[in-house]
Amino acid sequence: MDAIALWQRYQDWLYYHPGLELYLDVSRMRFDDAFVASLMPKFEAAFAQMAALEAGAIANPDEQRMVGHYWLRDPQLAPSPELAQAITRSIADIESFAHQIHHGEIHPRRGGRFTDLISIGIGGSALGPEFVAQALSPDNPPLDIHFIDNTDPAGIDRTLHQLGDRLYSSLVLVISKSGGTPEPRNGMIEVQQKMMDLGINFADHAVAVTGYGSHLAQLAEPWLGTFPMFDWVGGRTSELSAVGLLPAALQGIPIREMLAGAKEMDAATRVHDLKTNPAALLALSWYFAGEGKGKKDMVVLPYKDSLLLFSRYLQQLVMESLGKEKDLDGNIVNQGIAVYGNKGSTDQHAYVQQLRDGLPNFFMTLIEVLRDREGAAVEVEPGITSGDYLSGLLTGTRQALYEKQRDSITVTIPQVTPKLVGALIALYERAVGLYGFLVNINAYHQPGVEAGKKAAAATLALQNQLVQVLQQESQPISLAALASKAGVPEQIETVYKILRHLAANDRGIELQGNLSQPASLLVILKP
Amino acid sequence: MDAIALWQRYQDWLYYHPGLELYLDVSRMRFDDAFVASLMPKFEAAFAQMAALEAGAIANPDEQRMVGHYWLRDPQLAPSPELAQAITRSIADIESFAHQIHHGEIHPRRGGRFTDLISIGIGGSALGPEFVAQALSPDNPPLDIHFIDNTDPAGIDRTLHQLGDRLYSSLVLVISKSGGTPEPRNGMIEVQQKMMDLGINFADHAVAVTGYGSHLAQLAEPWLGTFPMFDWVGGRTSELSAVGLLPAALQGIPIREMLAGAKEMDAATRVHDLKTNPAALLALSWYFAGEGKGKKDMVVLPYKDSLLLFSRYLQQLVMESLGKEKDLDGNIVNQGIAVYGNKGSTDQHAYVQQLRDGLPNFFMTLIEVLRDREGAAVEVEPGITSGDYLSGLLTGTRQALYEKQRDSITVTIPQVTPKLVGALIALYERAVGLYGFLVNINAYHQPGVEAGKKAAAATLALQNQLVQVLQQESQPISLAALASKAGVPEQIETVYKILRHLAANDRGIELQGNLSQPASLLVILKP
Repeated sequence: MDAIALWQRYQDWLYYHPGLELYLDVSRMRFDDAFVASLMPKFEAAFAQMAALEAGAIANPDEQRMVGHYWLRDPQLAPSPELAQAITRSIADIESFAHQIHHGEIHPRRGGRFTDLISIGIGGSALGPEFVAQALSPDNPPLDIHFIDNTDPAGIDRTLHQLGDRLYSSLVLVISKSGGTPEPRNGMIEVQQKMMDLGINFADHAVAVTGYGSHLAQLAEPWLGTFPMFDWVGGRTSELSAVGLLPAALQGIPIREMLAGAKEMDAATRVHDLKTNPAALLALSWYFAGEGKGKKDMVVLPYKDSLLLFSRYLQQLVMESLGKEKDLDGNIVNQGIAVYGNKGSTDQHAYVQQLRDGLPNFFMTLIEVLRDREGAAVEVEPGITSGDYLSGLLTGTRQALYEKQRDSITVTIPQVTPKLVGALIALYERAVGLYGFLVNINAYHQPGVEAGKKAAAATLALQNQLVQVLQQESQPISLAALASKAGVPEQIETVYKILRHLAANDRGIELQGNLSQPASLLVILKP
Repeated sequence: MDAIALWQRYQDWLYYHPGLELYLDVSRMRFDDAFVASLMPKFEAAFAQMAALEAGAIANPDEQRMVGHYWLRDPQLAPSPELAQAITRSIADIESFAHQIHHGEIHPRRGGRFTDLISIGIGGSALGPEFVAQALSPDNPPLDIHFIDNTDPAGIDRTLHQLGDRLYSSLVLVISKSGGTPEPRNGMIEVQQKMMDLGINFADHAVAVTGYGSHLAQLAEPWLGTFPMFDWVGGRTSELSAVGLLPAALQGIPIREMLAGAKEMDAATRVHDLKTNPAALLALSWYFAGEGKGKKDMVVLPYKDSLLLFSRYLQQLVMESLGKEKDLDGNIVNQGIAVYGNKGSTDQHAYVQQLRDGLPNFFMTLIEVLRDREGAAVEVEPGITSGDYLSGLLTGTRQALYEKQRDSITVTIPQVTPKLVGALIALYERAVGLYGFLVNINAYHQPGVEAGKKAAAATLALQNQLVQVLQQESQPISLAALASKAGVPEQIETVYKILRHLAANDRGIELQGNLSQPASLLVILKP
């Protein structure tokens, strides 16, 4: 296609939202009219299914739950006045709580103000807050946020060491729907213990975001506050619930602007017309790229440092929603789209080499931010600024990829503001929802996550069992004999792994023998 | 394969390095003996090619350069005494410089000590230092490091704002082989301007890592120091040159331990025997997973917060090395392996759903760290620690994936120490080198990176040209007319993009008309 024809195609497909000043350009996805026409029936069905979902249909059939994250930013759409009121109240409560914290009305027992926020959560309870903190937190926020998003003892120790004396003025936010997910539970216990060692009463510093009636909700009764996780909001779409809004508000981010941006984008993506619905244009492009089977990876490069974590946020939103074994009719389909990326132009120096010359197993999403910075710019060459370079590198990369038949989508926003971040979240939530309907999968459950958790729980139970068996042994014992005595001869490899880990951590276990030949090892429980 | 047979396979393929206490387990890559036998001739050739490369053969034929990163940790192997001496001297110089900085012998002009380090670089001059800082920097390092790894004005502003008054005691490190790469050049100019505004003499705060005789080397003559980037070290293998060692030493990381770990791993991966060479085992596994064509993505999950950036480091090392259009015989092969991942168990909550149930388009690398933390552990349940959970989640995920025919490699290290980080870098450098030989590509150039840079440079030249044309116009002018007057009617889309960016940044350009219809817009140069 020559440049002028391409310019026409650019305009023909350009989407612009005047209120948000957001552009979406899918002209470099090389679908043709016949392809678009062929998808129309699927889109008609998807639009209808999405409307039913928004009206409160049970859209997560496995879990018999409604899917209501769209109601969070427009409570009037919720299927009952009670739900609408619960949403509205939770937002007001968050603002009120943040106000009290910022003004020292709620303060550490020994006085002063809270200076830091330790946010404990994983998955949907971490990725949104992390993305938003990096994108929107002021340079000098009222509370500095720190994340504990894993069960890594060394990682927790580093965070707590770096906080040092500021632990006395740290607010601790525990985010867990059930309170039963091990990682945040462990993080909470670790922080609680550390505070106890320092003579700090944890309850005076803690606040929870959790489901009604959860174990965590009970535990949190004496804490500074509890905010709701609604059962009709999934973890990966919870950023605009208390999960994301509470840490945002505590950092001084105007949360109503985030909600307003999402609401505006929700309205724009409710339109039953492919060409004027930006989420539908994204879903169309993804379907085209991967033939509706995820055959191409989605590489996401925002050309803006503050959006670095957007692709990590999208990894969860896209992959956990779309990565499914079966379709809704029970056929094995092994769906999904792999997502990765960090930021431009930085990643150009990491792997644009492969993107342009190597495997054509991806399509690209470039995110452009028109405004370079606040205030005046330095010229780095006559007439040229650092921001011109960033802009030129984006344009150049898009062109260099297109020349080599590598497709790309470009999303352009005026600035990284709370409103636009809310809009981006809503745009991708809807695109994922529509794509899920296009490929006929349940985008709202995650059955595959359980297997690894169950295997982990079994490993931990086996660990305690092995220690008990060893306590009966006075002599060194082989791994095979130990596995047999524990009644799990076939699990000898897991037995070995458990003991190797215990031995490395001064837990009273010693492994004697040739470490390169595990079967030769003898196990000793040290007195 | 039943559990006992699998245990036998585990032991048959287990690699253990006693000095490094490092294990490599490829037993969950389901290759068979016939596959291994079929690759033997390729491995024989690859071992021989690697030996020639280490002896100083021109291994980067496009650029007529030697590839010498292995000499950095064992200078006696360098092909001449002069090279060996240059390496040895650069390490001593780095240690001496860091010592002088730490002890205030080199200090800011107004006194006191340097407190912060601003490291300016991109690609190979950023990813290694960022990975190592996160992995190894002490909790309270002698200098806090901050990275400027992009040409994003807002990102630079945020870093400088957050530094605030500490800019007066900040050392600035500019890393650029030629000094001509725009991103670090722009970062340098921005920081220099900011310091000038504060009355700080940049030269008194600056140090360079650059090639002999480069533009930057000339510029840096009056600075605090210049350290060499050897022309036989590529950016993506430069972490154990001054590029990585200088920032590491300044943070108080013992760089000779990093070098010693790499040297030990280099020796282990020089062995001409597949089963006892861990880099060869990795290359074999990668070849098996993707049929020597990169058909599967490499998902890298270290179960340790401090290794979070390892996969981002590997993205460059693997993708820029292997992502090539042509093989060494000139055939179009479009090689590569896509790499992504963050950390476990965190990512289990993001996308293990897709990995287990969805597209089987990947293989996994799990990185296990045996030692959980320094000091004693809290029990989160009777007999169980947070670290036991992390370990159990790794084991459980590996098992849950294997049950679904998803292959995985496990690398186990005792702790995250300078020695082991050096060893990991060397292990993957060698694996990438061997794999490059297996698939017959030049792993040491990056021709595809130029196209985007050239297109960007052309865009910036066009920007200045458009501004000149507009200065002759007294009336609003259409985009088409402007593109014609600039002599580039076919580049109207780029013209539009340039003007839209200028208009968003108070650069004296206004666009009038319907923003959703670019062809309708009129351009005005404001007085």
